[in-house]
Amino acid sequence: MININTLKNRRQKLANLINFPVVLWSGKSPSKNFKANHYPFRASSHFLYFAGIPIENAAIKLENGKLDLFMDNPSPDSTLWHGEMPTREDIAREIGANSAYPMEVLKDQIDDVATIPVQDIFTYEKQQKMLQRSLSINKASKEIDNQLMKAIISLRLTHDETALKEIRKAVNVSVEAHKIGIKSTKKCSTEAEVRAVMESYIISKNMICAYNSIVTINGEILHNETYHNSLKSGDLLLADVGAETALGWASDITRTWPVNGHFSSSQRDIYDVVLAAHDTCIEAIKPGVEYREIHLLGAKIMAEGLVNLGILKGDPETLVEKDAHAIFFPHGIGHLLGLDVHDMEDLGDLAGYEEGRTRSDRFGLGYLRLDRPLKAGMVVTIEPGFYQVPAILNHPQFKEKYDQDINWDKLKQLSDVRGIRIEDDILVTETGTEILTQNLPTQAENIEEMMR
Amino acid sequence: MININTLKNRRQKLANLINFPVVLWSGKSPSKNFKANHYPFRASSHFLYFAGIPIENAAIKLENGKLDLFMDNPSPDSTLWHGEMPTREDIAREIGANSAYPMEVLKDQIDDVATIPVQDIFTYEKQQKMLQRSLSINKASKEIDNQLMKAIISLRLTHDETALKEIRKAVNVSVEAHKIGIKSTKKCSTEAEVRAVMESYIISKNMICAYNSIVTINGEILHNETYHNSLKSGDLLLADVGAETALGWASDITRTWPVNGHFSSSQRDIYDVVLAAHDTCIEAIKPGVEYREIHLLGAKIMAEGLVNLGILKGDPETLVEKDAHAIFFPHGIGHLLGLDVHDMEDLGDLAGYEEGRTRSDRFGLGYLRLDRPLKAGMVVTIEPGFYQVPAILNHPQFKEKYDQDINWDKLKQLSDVRGIRIEDDILVTETGTEILTQNLPTQAENIEEMMR
Ligand SMILES: [Mn+2]
Ligand SMILES: [Mn+2]
Repeated sequence: MININTLKNRRQKLANLINFPVVLWSGKSPSKNFKANHYPFRASSHFLYFAGIPIENAAIKLENGKLDLFMDNPSPDSTLWHGEMPTREDIAREIGANSAYPMEVLKDQIDDVATIPVQDIFTYEKQQKMLQRSLSINKASKEIDNQLMKAIISLRLTHDETALKEIRKAVNVSVEAHKIGIKSTKKCSTEAEVRAVMESYIISKNMICAYNSIVTINGEILHNETYHNSLKSGDLLLADVGAETALGWASDITRTWPVNGHFSSSQRDIYDVVLAAHDTCIEAIKPGVEYREIHLLGAKIMAEGLVNLGILKGDPETLVEKDAHAIFFPHGIGHLLGLDVHDMEDLGDLAGYEEGRTRSDRFGLGYLRLDRPLKAGMVVTIEPGFYQVPAILNHPQFKEKYDQDINWDKLKQLSDVRGIRIEDDILVTETGTEILTQNLPTQAENIEEMMR
Repeated sequence: MININTLKNRRQKLANLINFPVVLWSGKSPSKNFKANHYPFRASSHFLYFAGIPIENAAIKLENGKLDLFMDNPSPDSTLWHGEMPTREDIAREIGANSAYPMEVLKDQIDDVATIPVQDIFTYEKQQKMLQRSLSINKASKEIDNQLMKAIISLRLTHDETALKEIRKAVNVSVEAHKIGIKSTKKCSTEAEVRAVMESYIISKNMICAYNSIVTINGEILHNETYHNSLKSGDLLLADVGAETALGWASDITRTWPVNGHFSSSQRDIYDVVLAAHDTCIEAIKPGVEYREIHLLGAKIMAEGLVNLGILKGDPETLVEKDAHAIFFPHGIGHLLGLDVHDMEDLGDLAGYEEGRTRSDRFGLGYLRLDRPLKAGMVVTIEPGFYQVPAILNHPQFKEKYDQDINWDKLKQLSDVRGIRIEDDILVTETGTEILTQNLPTQAENIEEMMR
């Protein structure tokens, strides 16, 4: 299942970049109602990158390409409840560790080590106590932590074959989940039923969801995690659903389809604008291209399309310069994908933004999560969207600024287009791109065909 | 959806039991990979009991039957991402709050209040900081906290009609999930596929799982949360799966069925022993009966059945006295059910054990989660089981102690019976019981019938 050579390779590459020891913790599953009723365990991604498998309550020390594993053996009592579990030695062998010790040995081995704070607060407190220094979540607290973060980012920005194999596995399951969702919708009467069909496929392949699914007729609510609406003929359904493999690698796919199997003409018009932006962005991807330029290209195609439909007025380039596209497309064109759905977002913008760059304060750029030149081996999403967000359209400040750029009468005719997004996962290759999600149709007519 | 009169009634009943103010926090959803990729929010059960609905990052102050709500309004930015959300005033109205304030007001109102620590560590730290005292998770840190816990337990031990309505909703969805699981198994080839079918039904009804499902051919691993095995003809499948309503009320059901639709004769023999224990325990339930006696009755029926099958040797009562039943039935007969699947287990044994009682150190009693006289309005599970746990059967100490009580040759003929459990949810009524899960068959022949 796991590839020890890859893991050793990653450890060695880290050693080539830094000359101090590192300790990474895996974390533990947070309690829900009470200790025994916990959320499913999800190991820290940085731990997973070097250890390969999720091991609860463990730590690894990385130094000169070597890995020492720290974990306690399961208690005899836990054998009764959890069955025969692998011992520390079993796991050390499985992940190619150089040595393995009980957890308590670690505290004598962590003078002056660098670390990355985990998300699980219980372990985070433990990290601070063991290291006898305070850590800020989402940023480096010490210069060696900063160097470690940058070194890990430089490794995780591009994917080795083992990682790509896992991402492909996650993608393939998500593609099928979307196909089943699209095909089943005419038989479903609620958002929850479509969600059930899609997540059920992921569960049946023994994977989990990489993030909380969005399955909604209110696509304009960008982070909608409720599923209580009924489906009505004439609604568009937006589904952003992605699987994660057992080893923690993610996928991230969005499709938008008509509940009744047929896009109305207004829905089709806007859908095709979003799709044009999607296709043009993907075609433009190749090593060396700035992802920010891809975003702005997407914005321009969106603006052009909306001008052609008479919704925006004026010159597309000028509209983008004044962020008028962002009225309808307020988020970024995509993000890094890997062990995390927004890869390495636990490090704030350190991973997403090239050194020396920071978030723009422009309305049409500030939500961009990735601003780096693309490199072969990166996996990014491309996910343009069109939304009628009441909080934007009714905002006095926006209304005043963009009043002359929008044909409000025309916009009124689009009341059945609340939110459309089309999202694919793209591997940057030496020569251009490989669309990992290519088996899932994007064309409106192909989606209608699938629903027949 | 929520019943304000019930909530006010609960608040007044609390005021009748204590004469000091109380502050309860709702908690927040823990981060998974990074801040924006979080686990689904699950409010603290004590908060839910008095506030009625899950509100993230909120607190309530309860005093003299009145409730003050503390929460911040959604930020303008969050409207962009999460849509129009109810304001503090909207929510205050919905839950029948007497007043509502921003969170920062709370810190001036929490001198000498009692509280219960939440499970979410982030909020738990906040609780301690605001109260300027340290709290232990799972136990009272101050005499008023202890009094508060006991008062809340005395309320939550028996359920009002609003609570029962929610529990029935959760039960009904779980019953259907089990029916679909049983009916679909012959078409499934892995544990994960059966799990998908069952959880899918729960998701389709816009509910969540009240706990991590167990769906396994290794029923002898009591807390098995992996689903990677293939199903083989001759295997028994044990499924412990329960839904939770949107307001947080739980259900908890286990059934065990043959993958190929037919119990083998050894499986049927043991199944019927477990079922006899199950039925006899449920028949014995009525107000005033000690739950511990129900457990011991279940143990006796198990021992009798195993003696009749020639697996145990000797007098059943004597075997139970020396805990020989626990070789095969090592856990308790059940637990309280309510807002938590093990209701109020966040308070340790304070809820499960009558004042002055503590866990037994007997092997056959120490895992019992409930030791109180039953009262009308309680909901408990009854879940006897038979397991061949290698960690017990191969344990030198147990082997020696019980060597003469077990017919090892006979036991060898039961190699296709690794784990069987039958679990129902029972409401204690004035006159006896109502089996809330009665629509789900328990008889082996009825299960075989469903699979045809
Ligand atoms: Mn995405
Ligand atoms: Mn149970």
